[in-house]
Amino acid sequence: MEKITGGITAAQGFKAAGVHSGVKYRSLDLGLVTSDVPAKCFIGYTTNKVKAAPVQVMMESDPRELQAFVINSGNANALTGKRGIEDVHSMRSHAASALGIDDEELVGVISTGLIGRFLNMPKILYGIDRASKELAYGYEADSDFAEAIMTTDTRKKEVAYRVKLEDGSLVTIAGVAKGSGMVSPHMKVLHATTLSFVATDAVLSEKFISKWQETMDDTFNMISVDGDQSTNDISVLMANGLAGGDCADEDPNFITALKKVMGDLAYMVVEDGEGVTKVIEVEVRGAASGECARSAVKSIIRSPLVKTAIFGSDPNYGRIMMALGNSDCDFNVDDVKLTIFGAGIEVPILEYGTPVFEDQRSVDIVRMAMEGDAVKISVTLGDGEHSATGWGCDLSYDYVKINAEYTT
Amino acid sequence: MEKITGGITAAQGFKAAGVHSGVKYRSLDLGLVTSDVPAKCFIGYTTNKVKAAPVQVMMESDPRELQAFVINSGNANALTGKRGIEDVHSMRSHAASALGIDDEELVGVISTGLIGRFLNMPKILYGIDRASKELAYGYEADSDFAEAIMTTDTRKKEVAYRVKLEDGSLVTIAGVAKGSGMVSPHMKVLHATTLSFVATDAVLSEKFISKWQETMDDTFNMISVDGDQSTNDISVLMANGLAGGDCADEDPNFITALKKVMGDLAYMVVEDGEGVTKVIEVEVRGAASGECARSAVKSIIRSPLVKTAIFGSDPNYGRIMMALGNSDCDFNVDDVKLTIFGAGIEVPILEYGTPVFEDQRSVDIVRMAMEGDAVKISVTLGDGEHSATGWGCDLSYDYVKINAEYTT
Repeated sequence: MEKITGGITAAQGFKAAGVHSGVKYRSLDLGLVTSDVPAKCFIGYTTNKVKAAPVQVMMESDPRELQAFVINSGNANALTGKRGIEDVHSMRSHAASALGIDDEELVGVISTGLIGRFLNMPKILYGIDRASKELAYGYEADSDFAEAIMTTDTRKKEVAYRVKLEDGSLVTIAGVAKGSGMVSPHMKVLHATTLSFVATDAVLSEKFISKWQETMDDTFNMISVDGDQSTNDISVLMANGLAGGDCADEDPNFITALKKVMGDLAYMVVEDGEGVTKVIEVEVRGAASGECARSAVKSIIRSPLVKTAIFGSDPNYGRIMMALGNSDCDFNVDDVKLTIFGAGIEVPILEYGTPVFEDQRSVDIVRMAMEGDAVKISVTLGDGEHSATGWGCDLSYDYVKINAEYTT
Repeated sequence: MEKITGGITAAQGFKAAGVHSGVKYRSLDLGLVTSDVPAKCFIGYTTNKVKAAPVQVMMESDPRELQAFVINSGNANALTGKRGIEDVHSMRSHAASALGIDDEELVGVISTGLIGRFLNMPKILYGIDRASKELAYGYEADSDFAEAIMTTDTRKKEVAYRVKLEDGSLVTIAGVAKGSGMVSPHMKVLHATTLSFVATDAVLSEKFISKWQETMDDTFNMISVDGDQSTNDISVLMANGLAGGDCADEDPNFITALKKVMGDLAYMVVEDGEGVTKVIEVEVRGAASGECARSAVKSIIRSPLVKTAIFGSDPNYGRIMMALGNSDCDFNVDDVKLTIFGAGIEVPILEYGTPVFEDQRSVDIVRMAMEGDAVKISVTLGDGEHSATGWGCDLSYDYVKINAEYTT
């Protein structure tokens, strides 16, 4: 597995474009990615009960193959009722026609941005026309696409790996994501929707859907900036098979590389979380089940009191235990071991559920560890076999500022 | 039902004291409340799986009667293992002996403050001795007690009502609570544990426990400052029966007045929430079940994106729907009605799940409503019969400041 330079078009047969449609005031706001041939697709959607119109349409059509995906930023097309649904269909048929794709169901659509406003369709359709004429591959196309899907992000998020499969064939997995940061306050959008697109030229079958679920569960489903799930989250894998070779469904090298691509993208999202000053990694080991471990990780990573303590490098480790105790995971406090890593220091905090130190000097060492740019919290619950890892970020003044400012 | 001046000793036969034991640097930090005769008691505890030592001891002894309750602030006696448990027993037996109570199980104990440190027992025992000598009733005793149990609170929280029961007898219900604000940064404690104590001279039977659960469910269990449940929460009702009369278990006037006392105390907690600038009230109607309505209320009240929007008077109502969609409550978006009240203005936002307006003037009106000191969000989900109401507060720069500062 080798990391390569490039974005979404690094895999064979994929082209992309990012244009300014006018929905946003100045920035690129409409992205298009296509495959030369129909690609098998695997899609995860938000589980929020309030789903944006494009999420509803995509879930209903439930495509097994896609040849193109249109994304607009600046407006989420959510809470837009029947008119919102009609607008998605217009985007889809317009893109199919502009790209010469016979079956409009081969076109995916997603939106991200402010909730509760109707799309300006003349601008969107103009953007689709323009993007379909500008499709290309290489650095510029990758970059424009990655930028066009951003909202409060401060930088684009893309990654690509080349991986040799067991049958000797060489495939590429390329990904791009958006999520969570401030681009420009006057165009600040609703919240940190995550969108992620992964393109590969490997051969996959429809059965790969369960592996895609596992990959999402270990990566994007383990990150949190503010604990608020979006109405628009989507995670798309497109596999056009143009690299040839055997079906990679069960290929361990492929699966490892795919997880790496998704893991890298997910990490980039928390690294660019709104107002972030530190990334927090939480690892829970020794749990009785995977579900238990994941619940424990998420409860810690979402706690405002843990997040503010880390922002302030406040060695208030009791808050970590408080958050752990609020998870759905059952454990015996007397078995818990807690360690904090940061700034190159590893500090044991609890053994058998009680503090291993009490003097001021030890507290100062905890603070030093917490002053690192990345703080890792490691919890061992007992002697269970399951573990989970998740990533989040601290809660800073800037998070409040970004999210308290006027929508428009 | 008549509101009267006074705190915890307003009900007959109750005495209280609040003293400085030295656990905190300067403020009162140890409170004691007693009843002249053993009082029936009804207690709710935190459901956090990490429970402070006094919570563990109280849950295990599960008392039906209490004659005294000792509370220390400044240290939560949580994550303190076996030594913490022993310290609770010492506090209990010491208080029983100082008060001349034969059965130490008639003494309740709770702590609030920093997690993960051992109690300074010489100071605590000294404090108990001193408090037991200073027991009194009236304004000063009430006030000292209310102050001694505070941590980050900025003001004491007490309320009392006199109510005429159906049999004509007159009883008093008096309550005191603590929770959630900054007293003094260098003594800032872990988090907004809520403690609430209600004393009444009404006659109650053991069967009243289910009514106490209902009362907590409609009041303290419906508030949130940061969504992080404490390791130390406790809610205690003591009924000594000294007012005489019939058993008030089923008396509607008593139940209404008790709910009013607990509701007032709970509201005082969010009004003094850490960093609060606005109180948020969320009402959900038309739900298919009470559980569904409560889940919907809590999801909205805990959302950082809703809280920051209200802090900034940002009319980003889409966030309310996003939060609603993340609750455990099932509903059809197309049935949802959303209204915001504030600053004396009522603004309809959604009808049948879609915005009722789209021009800038309407958005400005939403912002004006959100600029009020108290913002009310009213959601109707459908034609279900169930409803729930909850209270929270906004998320401000000061919340981050209070919680990012060094523990000691």
